Amino acid sequence: MENKITSPKVLFFDVNETLLDLTPIKTKITKLFNGDSDKVSHWFSTLLHYSLVVSATGDYHHFGKIGAVTLKMLAAEQGISLSIEDAKLIVTQGFKQLPAHEEVANALSRLKRSGYTLVALTNSDSDTLAAQLQYAQLASFFDAQLSVEKIGLFKPHSKVYGWAALQMGVDPKDTLLLAAHGWDVAGALQANLRAIFIARKGKYEFPLAPKTEAVVQNLTEAADYLIGLK
Amino acid sequence: MENKITSPKVLFFDVNETLLDLTPIKTKITKLFNGDSDKVSHWFSTLLHYSLVVSATGDYHHFGKIGAVTLKMLAAEQGISLSIEDAKLIVTQGFKQLPAHEEVANALSRLKRSGYTLVALTNSDSDTLAAQLQYAQLASFFDAQLSVEKIGLFKPHSKVYGWAALQMGVDPKDTLLLAAHGWDVAGALQANLRAIFIARKGKYEFPLAPKTEAVVQNLTEAADYLIGLK
Repeated sequence: MENKITSPKVLFFDVNETLLDLTPIKTKITKLFNGDSDKVSHWFSTLLHYSLVVSATGDYHHFGKIGAVTLKMLAAEQGISLSIEDAKLIVTQGFKQLPAHEEVANALSRLKRSGYTLVALTNSDSDTLAAQLQYAQLASFFDAQLSVEKIGLFKPHSKVYGWAALQMGVDPKDTLLLAAHGWDVAGALQANLRAIFIARKGKYEFPLAPKTEAVVQNLTEAADYLIGLK
Repeated sequence: MENKITSPKVLFFDVNETLLDLTPIKTKITKLFNGDSDKVSHWFSTLLHYSLVVSATGDYHHFGKIGAVTLKMLAAEQGISLSIEDAKLIVTQGFKQLPAHEEVANALSRLKRSGYTLVALTNSDSDTLAAQLQYAQLASFFDAQLSVEKIGLFKPHSKVYGWAALQMGVDPKDTLLLAAHGWDVAGALQANLRAIFIARKGKYEFPLAPKTEAVVQNLTEAADYLIGLK
């Protein structure tokens, strides 16, 4: 008799890029960089790098604030003058007004109806997270909203995932993270959570990380897989 | 009577970009990305991000290996097929054959003659570091070569800097790091080392970090400053 994969007790969802579409921020950054749309990906990777730099040096700042200063650094690198106020308008305000990817609401609704506990787990600060889910009309699907602000470390620090499981009163192995980022699912797997990689356009798994139990194209496919485990 | 700033007992030098010129790798990566020279900076920031991801998830791989897989990820994002062997040729081999920035040998020579202890401190692995200093004809200037491979954590993790000072038998506050990276000097300062930022073209300090005691354009100016402290 084969081992049947059981259904996880709690589903954690990464927010930025996984649930929400960064296109509005991308449009503004592309304009800032005179039409170079590749700069968005470069900025986001610089933001992610510096979020971990901040933790590695024993400090903490809101993700949006790090996003604004890294955008200013990247602009300076390109000889573009950008005030910190304008950077904050693009990034900090920008994060709060992102639409959900088109299939997200329906997939979350199906997962909820099938009995899953749904939790948002993000590097954004608590206020931004609340504003994001509200703006994208996703707030009602979630049983809990967890921001790394509460633990003062950014994903993929292993402690974040264990802390998140503890907040939900479950063992890490009974939870599963869904994310469109190779670094995020890598962190979850190393912390003994389960994980599904959402292979959104242009997103690839980190080859040096353990393998996730499923790789899907979007949340509809993830919901199909997870409802199938029930 | 004013407080005179004393001369540090040990000088730590970051290697990639600070001492060595990445142009040969840049040329190859620009060619890979069909002439887009901005991709080099994007790749390097992705490499730095994933080096900290690896530490944050409790793992360790050589910096060059992470460099090769992140290059492959970035190529895939752009729809460019790149074998891991070719990525390693560009990155892992590439790191070993970089020339020194033009003023470096002379500045190191002056610092050495003025009585300073010079130490290379890099995220590269030990073998790569030895090959790099040999190829760039800088090996003879250094009293020690320290790779983070020995501690299994990447800069700017605070522990790296304290460990480096310990290897040299001195207190962190009696050492000073010279680096062209905002994240590197940020880590050193948070670990109670002193630091000088080398503002090479396109490099900017991280605005959320403490200030370094000096910002200079190149190693010649850094040598002027440090020799002035003797």
